[in-house]
Amino acid sequence: MNPPSDSVVGSLQFAALSRRYAAGTLTPLDVVDAVLRRIDARGDDHVWITLRDPAALRDEAAELALRWPDPAHRPPLYGVPFAVKDNIDVAGLPTTAGCPAYARTPEQGAPLVERLVAAGALLVGKTNLDQFATGLSGTRSPYGACESPLVPGLISGGSSSGSAVAVAAGLVGFAIGTDTGGSGRVPAALTGTVGLKPSPGLVSTLGLVPACASLDCPSVFALSTADALAVLAVMAGPEPADPWSRPLPVPDPEPVDTGPLRVGVPARPDFSGDAAAAAAFAEATGQLAELGHRPVPIDMEPFLAAGRLLYGGPWLAERLTAIGGFVADRPDDVHPVTRRVLRDGRNYSAVDAFAGMHRLRGLRARADRVWSEIDVLAVPTVPTTFTLAEVAYDPIGHDRTLGRYASFANLLDLAAVAVPGGTTAVGRPHGLTLLAPAGGDALVAGVAAAFHARTELFAGATGEPLEPHTPVREEEPGRLPARN
Amino acid sequence: MNPPSDSVVGSLQFAALSRRYAAGTLTPLDVVDAVLRRIDARGDDHVWITLRDPAALRDEAAELALRWPDPAHRPPLYGVPFAVKDNIDVAGLPTTAGCPAYARTPEQGAPLVERLVAAGALLVGKTNLDQFATGLSGTRSPYGACESPLVPGLISGGSSSGSAVAVAAGLVGFAIGTDTGGSGRVPAALTGTVGLKPSPGLVSTLGLVPACASLDCPSVFALSTADALAVLAVMAGPEPADPWSRPLPVPDPEPVDTGPLRVGVPARPDFSGDAAAAAAFAEATGQLAELGHRPVPIDMEPFLAAGRLLYGGPWLAERLTAIGGFVADRPDDVHPVTRRVLRDGRNYSAVDAFAGMHRLRGLRARADRVWSEIDVLAVPTVPTTFTLAEVAYDPIGHDRTLGRYASFANLLDLAAVAVPGGTTAVGRPHGLTLLAPAGGDALVAGVAAAFHARTELFAGATGEPLEPHTPVREEEPGRLPARN
Repeated sequence: MNPPSDSVVGSLQFAALSRRYAAGTLTPLDVVDAVLRRIDARGDDHVWITLRDPAALRDEAAELALRWPDPAHRPPLYGVPFAVKDNIDVAGLPTTAGCPAYARTPEQGAPLVERLVAAGALLVGKTNLDQFATGLSGTRSPYGACESPLVPGLISGGSSSGSAVAVAAGLVGFAIGTDTGGSGRVPAALTGTVGLKPSPGLVSTLGLVPACASLDCPSVFALSTADALAVLAVMAGPEPADPWSRPLPVPDPEPVDTGPLRVGVPARPDFSGDAAAAAAFAEATGQLAELGHRPVPIDMEPFLAAGRLLYGGPWLAERLTAIGGFVADRPDDVHPVTRRVLRDGRNYSAVDAFAGMHRLRGLRARADRVWSEIDVLAVPTVPTTFTLAEVAYDPIGHDRTLGRYASFANLLDLAAVAVPGGTTAVGRPHGLTLLAPAGGDALVAGVAAAFHARTELFAGATGEPLEPHTPVREEEPGRLPARN
Repeated sequence: MNPPSDSVVGSLQFAALSRRYAAGTLTPLDVVDAVLRRIDARGDDHVWITLRDPAALRDEAAELALRWPDPAHRPPLYGVPFAVKDNIDVAGLPTTAGCPAYARTPEQGAPLVERLVAAGALLVGKTNLDQFATGLSGTRSPYGACESPLVPGLISGGSSSGSAVAVAAGLVGFAIGTDTGGSGRVPAALTGTVGLKPSPGLVSTLGLVPACASLDCPSVFALSTADALAVLAVMAGPEPADPWSRPLPVPDPEPVDTGPLRVGVPARPDFSGDAAAAAAFAEATGQLAELGHRPVPIDMEPFLAAGRLLYGGPWLAERLTAIGGFVADRPDDVHPVTRRVLRDGRNYSAVDAFAGMHRLRGLRARADRVWSEIDVLAVPTVPTTFTLAEVAYDPIGHDRTLGRYASFANLLDLAAVAVPGGTTAVGRPHGLTLLAPAGGDALVAGVAAAFHARTELFAGATGEPLEPHTPVREEEPGRLPARN
C-alpha cells in the first residue's frame, strides 16, 4: 500500500488528525512518514539539533496503532508528532542547550516528556534554541539562526526558535519550549503560532537545563489554543521530586467560554515606532471588545519595571548558578553574544540580589493593585519585529525590545497565552499575549481561543484553516473569577 | 486620693486588668503609676532605651478613662501598658535599632503601633535589643546587656531582649518584638514569657528597621498565649502600603481548643549536651501526649539546614541591603560583635544568593513532605541556656546554638508560639516552640495555651498565677486542619 501523499495527511491540528485516525483513513505511521518527508523537503532550516532515528520513530508509530486499535479508547495525544526544545532531557538523546561542548546524554527523560509519550504523542526530535535559552531572537546558536516561515528574512524569535518553526511549518502537531522571560511567547508571535506559558510550577521543570531556576517554565507551541491546552492538560500536575512544582489547578483540556471580562490594556503602549504594529494592536483590542470584553487602560510601569530586572539586574546571576562553572572554564565554547550577556552576571553581589528581590516585591504589590481592577491583561506579544540582518547588527538591543511585554510574566507569577492576530499593514505578523495571575491558565486560554477563532487568520505558516472549536460553557461556579 | 499600692495593682495580665477596670477598683492612671514605680525600682536594668515622658503617659492614661467610661464598650487593649522594641518606629521618639549613631526620630509611627494605641494600649517606652536585631543573646548592645529576671547571671536572650524582660518582670502587660531568626522566641524561653511570632506577612513590617526584609516579622511577648493572641488580633491584617503584607487568616483574639493533633517532635533532638534540658523536653512532649496529641518523631534535617542558611549563608547579605551603607561609612559606631557578623555578608555574590534560594526551595519541599504527616511541630525553643559570662566568652558560637530550633521558621514560612515549660533539674528555664505552616497562627496558639495551662508554672518572673482561660471550642468547620 502506498502511503498517503502530504496533502492527504494534511493538517496536524489535533482535531483533524483525530478525525482521520478514527475514520481509519490515516495511521500514525502515515503521519510519521509525512513528517519525515516534510522535514526533508525543508532542507537545512536550522530547526533541528537532533532528529530521532527514522526507523525507531516508524516502529513506535506502528506499535502505537497496534496498542490502541479502538478509536474510542485512545490516549489524548494518540499519534500526534511533537518536538522538544534541546534544553529538555529526552532519554538517550543528547541535551545540548544549544552548546555542543555542553552536551550530555541523559538516561532519564524529563517527566513532562515521559507524560507526553505515555499519552500517545510521537517524539520526532529536538529543536534549536538561543544558547542556554538566553535570548529572544533565535539567532544565538552555533546550529544556525532560525527564520520565520511567514516572512523571508524575518527572525523566528527565540529562545524556543526551532520548536516554534517546527509547528508553524507543519512539521509537528505541537512542540515543547521553555519560557523564562518570553522564550515561549516571542517566537509564537513571529511564527503565527500559539505559545502557551503555563503558571510557574504547574508543569515540572525537572529535566530542564535551568536558565533562571526560580522563573523557568516549560511551554507549548501549537497551531491552536485548543491543541496547546490539550498538551498542557497532559503535562500539568504535581511532581513530588520537583521543589518548584506547586499545587495549582490543572486546566481542562478544552478552552472554556469565559464570558465577558475586564481586559487590561497598556494605557500608552510603546511599539518602538512601529506604526503598523500599533494599528494592529488597536484593532486587536477592538476585537476583544467585540467579543464582549471591556478594555481597561492600565499603567504598565510596574510590569515593565519588573521585566527590566531580568536582563538589567541581578537575575542575570541566577543564570550562572547552573552554567557559571562551564562558562568560566570554557569561554570559547560559548556563543560570543551569550558570553557578553552572561558576563555581567558576575558583577552583582548578594546584597544586589536581595535588593533586587525587595524591589520586585514592591513592583509585585503594585501589579497586584492593577489585578484588582482587571481579570486578564492583553499586551502585544512583541512591540515590533526584526529581520535576521537587523538582529545581527544589534543583537542585544533588539532582544530587549522583543522582551518588553514578555519578560515580566514569570517574575510576577503569571500565566500567559500568546495568540496570533494576523498581519500588520506592512506584512509582518502580530499577536496578542493574554496574561492572568498564576492559576489563571484556563482563563487566558479561553480568551485566546475565542480571539483566535474570530481572527481566523493564522494556523502558523501552514495556510490551513483553523480547526473549528466549540468552547465549553463553564458550569462550575467559582472556577473563573467574578465578572463585571 | 492615694494611688493603690503595687500589690493592689497586681498582675498586668489582661483578664486581671480588665476585671479590676470593670469593677472600678483600678484606673489606667493607677496602672501607669505602678508601672513607673516598678521601672524605677528595678534601676539600671538595661531594659529601656527610651522611656516616654511620665507626664505625657499619665495624661494619656487619664484621657483614656474619660474617653471610655463604660466598661461594656471599651477597646480590646484598654489600659494595658506596653513596650516596643527600639527597631520599630514610634512617632516622636527616636528609633535607634540599638545603635545610637543610627538614631532618627520618625514623624509617623509603625502602623502596628498606631493600631495598638487605637485599641487602648498605653505605650510606656522603647526597649533594648541586640544591635540591628542581629543576635539571639541580648548582649550585643551599647545600652548594656539584659539579664533574665528568672536566674541571676542568665542572659535574657535576644534580639528582643528588653521587650521580653519588660514583660517577664511585670513592667508592662505586653511588649512588641521582632523575629527574623528567633528574636521573638529565644528571649521568651529565657524569661519564661510567651513569644508569639505570627505567620510572615500577617502583621505589617512597615516602620521596622529591616533585618532581613523578606523574613522579618513583628512579634508579641506576653505572660500568656491568650494575651499574646489578643494583641495579634489587633495588629494583624492587610496593610496596602506594605509589599510584604499578605492575605492570611486573622486569628480570633482567644485561644481555641484544637482537639487532638499529630505533633511532630525531633527524632534525635540535640541539646548540646544539656541533659537537664533534654529531660525537660521529654517531659514536655509527654505532657503534649497527655493533652491528647500524638507525638510523631520526625527528621529535623530539612528544618535545621534551612536555619543554618540564615547566618551561614547569603542571607547575611540581606541584612546589608538596609544598613550596609551605614556599617561601611561608620564602622566604629557598630558593636564589634555585630560588625564581625555582618562583615561576611559582603563576601557573597549574587550567584551565591540565587544558589542559596534554590537550596532553600529544595529544603522547603522536603519540609513540606514532613508537614503532610504532622499538624504542628514541637521543638525546644532553645537547646540549652547560657550565662552572660559564657556569651561574653563565645558571642558568636553560642548564638548559633541558641538559634538551632528557631532560625528556620521564617525561611520556611511558618507561624510559631514559644511557651514556657517550667524549670529544668538544674534550675534553668525551658520551653517549647509550636510551629505550623503560615496561616496556622490560631492552631499553634491553641496548643500552646493548653500546654501552658497544664504546666501552670510560669507567668514570666512575676510569680503570679496564670490567669485561667477557657478555650473556645472551634465551631466553624474547616478553620483548623483535619485531625486524626
